[in-house]
Amino acid sequence: MSGEVESVESILEKYIPPGELESINKILYGNPALDLEIPAEVLEKAEAENYQVKAFSIPALPEETRRPRLVKIGLIQNKIVLPTDSPIQDQISALHARIGAIIENAGRAGVNIVCLQEAWTMPFAFCTREKHPWTQFAESAIDGHSTLFLAKLAEKYKMVIISPILERDETHGDVLWNTAVVIDQTGKVLGISRKNHIPRVGDFNESSYYYEGNTGHRVFQTIYGKIAINICYGRHHPQNWMMYGVNGAEIVFNPSATVGSLSEPMWRIEARNAAIANSYFTAAINRVGTEHFPREFTSGDGKPAHKEFGHFYGSSYIAAPDGSRTPGLSRVKDGLLITEVDLNLCRQITDKWGLRLTQRLDLYAASFTAAVNLDYKPPVIGK
Amino acid sequence: MSGEVESVESILEKYIPPGELESINKILYGNPALDLEIPAEVLEKAEAENYQVKAFSIPALPEETRRPRLVKIGLIQNKIVLPTDSPIQDQISALHARIGAIIENAGRAGVNIVCLQEAWTMPFAFCTREKHPWTQFAESAIDGHSTLFLAKLAEKYKMVIISPILERDETHGDVLWNTAVVIDQTGKVLGISRKNHIPRVGDFNESSYYYEGNTGHRVFQTIYGKIAINICYGRHHPQNWMMYGVNGAEIVFNPSATVGSLSEPMWRIEARNAAIANSYFTAAINRVGTEHFPREFTSGDGKPAHKEFGHFYGSSYIAAPDGSRTPGLSRVKDGLLITEVDLNLCRQITDKWGLRLTQRLDLYAASFTAAVNLDYKPPVIGK
Repeated sequence: MSGEVESVESILEKYIPPGELESINKILYGNPALDLEIPAEVLEKAEAENYQVKAFSIPALPEETRRPRLVKIGLIQNKIVLPTDSPIQDQISALHARIGAIIENAGRAGVNIVCLQEAWTMPFAFCTREKHPWTQFAESAIDGHSTLFLAKLAEKYKMVIISPILERDETHGDVLWNTAVVIDQTGKVLGISRKNHIPRVGDFNESSYYYEGNTGHRVFQTIYGKIAINICYGRHHPQNWMMYGVNGAEIVFNPSATVGSLSEPMWRIEARNAAIANSYFTAAINRVGTEHFPREFTSGDGKPAHKEFGHFYGSSYIAAPDGSRTPGLSRVKDGLLITEVDLNLCRQITDKWGLRLTQRLDLYAASFTAAVNLDYKPPVIGK
Repeated sequence: MSGEVESVESILEKYIPPGELESINKILYGNPALDLEIPAEVLEKAEAENYQVKAFSIPALPEETRRPRLVKIGLIQNKIVLPTDSPIQDQISALHARIGAIIENAGRAGVNIVCLQEAWTMPFAFCTREKHPWTQFAESAIDGHSTLFLAKLAEKYKMVIISPILERDETHGDVLWNTAVVIDQTGKVLGISRKNHIPRVGDFNESSYYYEGNTGHRVFQTIYGKIAINICYGRHHPQNWMMYGVNGAEIVFNPSATVGSLSEPMWRIEARNAAIANSYFTAAINRVGTEHFPREFTSGDGKPAHKEFGHFYGSSYIAAPDGSRTPGLSRVKDGLLITEVDLNLCRQITDKWGLRLTQRLDLYAASFTAAVNLDYKPPVIGK
């Protein structure tokens, strides 16, 4: 999108001299993520296909009783490929082709776990409140075409793939869900995780399409570590992040779709706060670009009807339990962010900071339980 | 401290041209806080007494059924005044004189609520694990000399003052607490709020001195709005912030004492995340400077014994429910941050973002309650 800044990092690097840049980067980003070498072929492919690749590594201390648990995480952010009024099957096929190629490249770079953006098979059409034609993008989590498509890539590269889709649950009333499908490194569907908190903000009341998820805070034990998925708006709810941590997640993915005017100042804060508070890694993924819809809609903000609602600002990043984070991907371009992390860092930081030791979960179990009573009287002094 | 950066903001402003600075400030800081005019006399006093004053305003939309609820918040960050081996009564008197003068200046600027830094009457000596002489800084919350001293200023300026001290609870076993005393605008002690989460990190196992607080998540109804105090390490615990919100707080103060090498990358994240997640204002206050102690101590990090543990980096700031924040005070200098906020913004953002509407407190009451059972089995798929 013209006029959009490429990234915060690109501006800092452009203007600030190295010494002072290092000082404020340490404050803004924490311990610097190290550069990770990836095959030249991967970079060439990406350049030829017009997307960005960035690669980092976040190490941990060596331990005597555990080996390093290195995992290469890949995050993919992208624009839609075809206009939103193209035939739906064409739109899906074009996205399969685009994302398939990026996943192939991630595979070449040795990525172990890939996560795609929220509702990656479609434009983010929920702003329109139109059911037709958009709900035709919905598919089965278990044997829908996107799951079958990704299963082959997962098996080919021994990769775990997290595929956030609009799910049609044909076996339970044909309802829709906002769902992440977890495909393991053999191509098998390990399970699904549904969006726990549904927005009613700005252009979106997504409860027109799907309700709050009913899969709780499950964690997936993969061969690369324990992962969980907190979809989009759930990132605003620290208690949601927390339950994934209580259940043992070491990496929590946050596939999202959110635009600049609404949420950008929050984007750098929330997933990173969750990494700190829960001593785990978080991975924040946002789509890119501006999507134009065929028919106009209003946004509940008193402004005239319109056909697009703003710029998805990308900026996908990884945050580590020690409070550090990688630079972000571009605000305007498709991209693949590769980050090799040592999961041993989770326990090391759990021990160092003691945030689980000191979390007083029993106090909050009692406090929340009291607070949900209709006759709960908050302790207010001086009233 | 020589070699320390003055602030992130000062470096951004020094090097980045105005147009691009505006773009990335919008991402880094959200909607820009407006400059607030304050009397020249206040600035002159501050300059003469060698501390910084910054003043901002964070407005809300006008409403038809409520008047604006403007509150001027003042945050004070400071170095200790005398060396830590000076007579204790002298150290306290010197801090009273220094802070008293800054509060007088805040009063002249029309500040309504002032919050001081954690344990403001003393050096942050808990790293030493020595009981003698430091516990002599402890005093009664109700009629200790610091409360009596501040009560006069509170009454003089019709100001609510939050005074975080090392409390000696003479009437309940003579134990120590880390306590914020809330003094109302008439000079009366409205009540106390104790630190809920006690660190065992880095140089600090403060449970050598005091335990987890027993005052819960109380909120103080003042004439200027509902306030609460989340002391220091409690900022790492989102569920702690959340309960103050559930109980109705509109501003939550976070008086702290924390050093650069330990926590600085987290400082900009946590209080701001809390403001977003709970649709209230947060106020983060950190002390400044490096404190040298008379006897050496170790830090549990394998390094040689030493007499100081690092630089308190100041950087106090206010975060708003819309995800924006003020610039910070200096990393190296005493300071007074004045921010006029319209508390109507809390409800406006509660309505806009719906984060309370969608918080599913009942789900988390049940989840936390289940999780504290010793035989709780986390839902792990694929194990």
